Amino acid sequence: MRTALAIDLGGTETRAGLVGADGQVLVEARSPTNAAGGPDAVIGELVRLVEIIREARPDARSVGLGVGAPGPLDSNAGIAIAPPTLAGWHDVPLAARLRERLGVEVQLENDANVAALGEWRFGAGVGTQSMVFATISTGIGGGIIADGRLLHGRRGLAGEIGHMTIAEGTERCACGALGCWEALASGTALGREGERLAASGGSPMLRAMAGTGPVTARHVGEAARAGDAGALALLEQEARWLGVGIVNLLHLYSPEVVVLGGGVSQLLDLLRPEMERTVRLRAMSAYRDIPIVSAKLGGHAGLVGAASLVL
Amino acid sequence: MRTALAIDLGGTETRAGLVGADGQVLVEARSPTNAAGGPDAVIGELVRLVEIIREARPDARSVGLGVGAPGPLDSNAGIAIAPPTLAGWHDVPLAARLRERLGVEVQLENDANVAALGEWRFGAGVGTQSMVFATISTGIGGGIIADGRLLHGRRGLAGEIGHMTIAEGTERCACGALGCWEALASGTALGREGERLAASGGSPMLRAMAGTGPVTARHVGEAARAGDAGALALLEQEARWLGVGIVNLLHLYSPEVVVLGGGVSQLLDLLRPEMERTVRLRAMSAYRDIPIVSAKLGGHAGLVGAASLVL
Repeated sequence: MRTALAIDLGGTETRAGLVGADGQVLVEARSPTNAAGGPDAVIGELVRLVEIIREARPDARSVGLGVGAPGPLDSNAGIAIAPPTLAGWHDVPLAARLRERLGVEVQLENDANVAALGEWRFGAGVGTQSMVFATISTGIGGGIIADGRLLHGRRGLAGEIGHMTIAEGTERCACGALGCWEALASGTALGREGERLAASGGSPMLRAMAGTGPVTARHVGEAARAGDAGALALLEQEARWLGVGIVNLLHLYSPEVVVLGGGVSQLLDLLRPEMERTVRLRAMSAYRDIPIVSAKLGGHAGLVGAASLVL
Repeated sequence: MRTALAIDLGGTETRAGLVGADGQVLVEARSPTNAAGGPDAVIGELVRLVEIIREARPDARSVGLGVGAPGPLDSNAGIAIAPPTLAGWHDVPLAARLRERLGVEVQLENDANVAALGEWRFGAGVGTQSMVFATISTGIGGGIIADGRLLHGRRGLAGEIGHMTIAEGTERCACGALGCWEALASGTALGREGERLAASGGSPMLRAMAGTGPVTARHVGEAARAGDAGALALLEQEARWLGVGIVNLLHLYSPEVVVLGGGVSQLLDLLRPEMERTVRLRAMSAYRDIPIVSAKLGGHAGLVGAASLVL
């Protein structure tokens, strides 16, 4: 079977693996990312992880190495521009340096695009030509499959879906603007609303779950599953904001399917009724019946997607 | 020189022409569209117009016929699905019927995409790989060039940029939703605000310009050019809404240039300061310096764009 080497470089953990042409992860190795150590330390660790994989499967003939890394990065040039989660990285020619050290063809892509590609080739988007992948987590990121290929745009910066304005004069986003989708519908936003509710005395259950720490999206989800009325109301609001953003994505990209990943998507069963009601209410008729589904690849999305870059 | 036949089928007027490979319109013929007459009458007229063009240039060897028509339409199948401006058109196989009658290869595309293609090949977007074209007129339409080709999406319905939500609970759009870009920033919206201002006594100049009729965007533009403070304030608000929408388009498509067409774009000199201020304020840094320019092709955009489908 054809196989590909894959690296999923994250801000806290890095994985390497060997992935089959059927999308199965055959071997995997991982280590903490030395994010403070600078490019040389991290690249050394990437090389070491790939060598571990090669030693585990010395017979494998891989077609190349796909690498998913935090953006912004220039996928054509193979350069990591300035990933905020990695200290001291500025215009690092990551693809070229790995090619030199490992003697293999390297394709680099940002992590949201990699996850989208993995879901498209091997997950919830199989068989479509156009797909929107949105990861609802600390922030909101996205990757777009447009007419049978990954949408890049200038410098690979298309698909920054978390930073579309969907409301005026409301919450300020980490990016500095007001009313971004991410500021209203990310897991961080849901946690913030949970904290406000708990602080106002509106949900003793949330307060008890969080203890002396801040309320997180996970707490809101757990309290909602336990039937807490305040938490359920927060999820209804979350679902509505998700729906508004998805309506925009439908009109702008016209996908055949919307795939949701990230921590908040694990609450999809609770979010779905109000989210779908919002879509039916606001989308034009031709866009109303597009399925909204959960990502399928889970923790392997990064590796499988990275392998898809070369498979 | 290579040439192409082109049809620009509009709700009120239809044009046909012969366009050179350099984007120049060599011959042109036009007639009112019999929009109430149904598909047979309109198609008959299209055939007649093309025959006029052929008779005018009997020596021309055209590479095919490109047709721009009102959406929604399926460009792959060459079918006009249900254009709201043409009575009795439902799933009309327009490309096939013109091919039969005229004995020439036919490519069909919706009018906003055709205009985008024309600007990209021969107008304000020449030399780019990614471009957003937005026409700010009665409504707001768009066409997207993504990584070197027209973005279609499912059923060719990508790029409905007028119907992204950019504000909550504000103006209701013709599509039924609240807070669409079109409901806030189209020429119709600008006229509506002008009418409100005039009705409240806030601009005697606007009232005088409109007489007993409704205030239109054109009146607001003229009053602003004459220095009317109320009209200038309306344009500032218009510019801000345009800027918010453009910020979204930058983040979602990452174009190298944003091209504005339609009647409202003729006020670009007045709109630019506040529009660009809004972009600088709200866009992430990597997107702030993208040029926003006027469409170049003017009244010929439809024909030149249609010809680009086959050239």
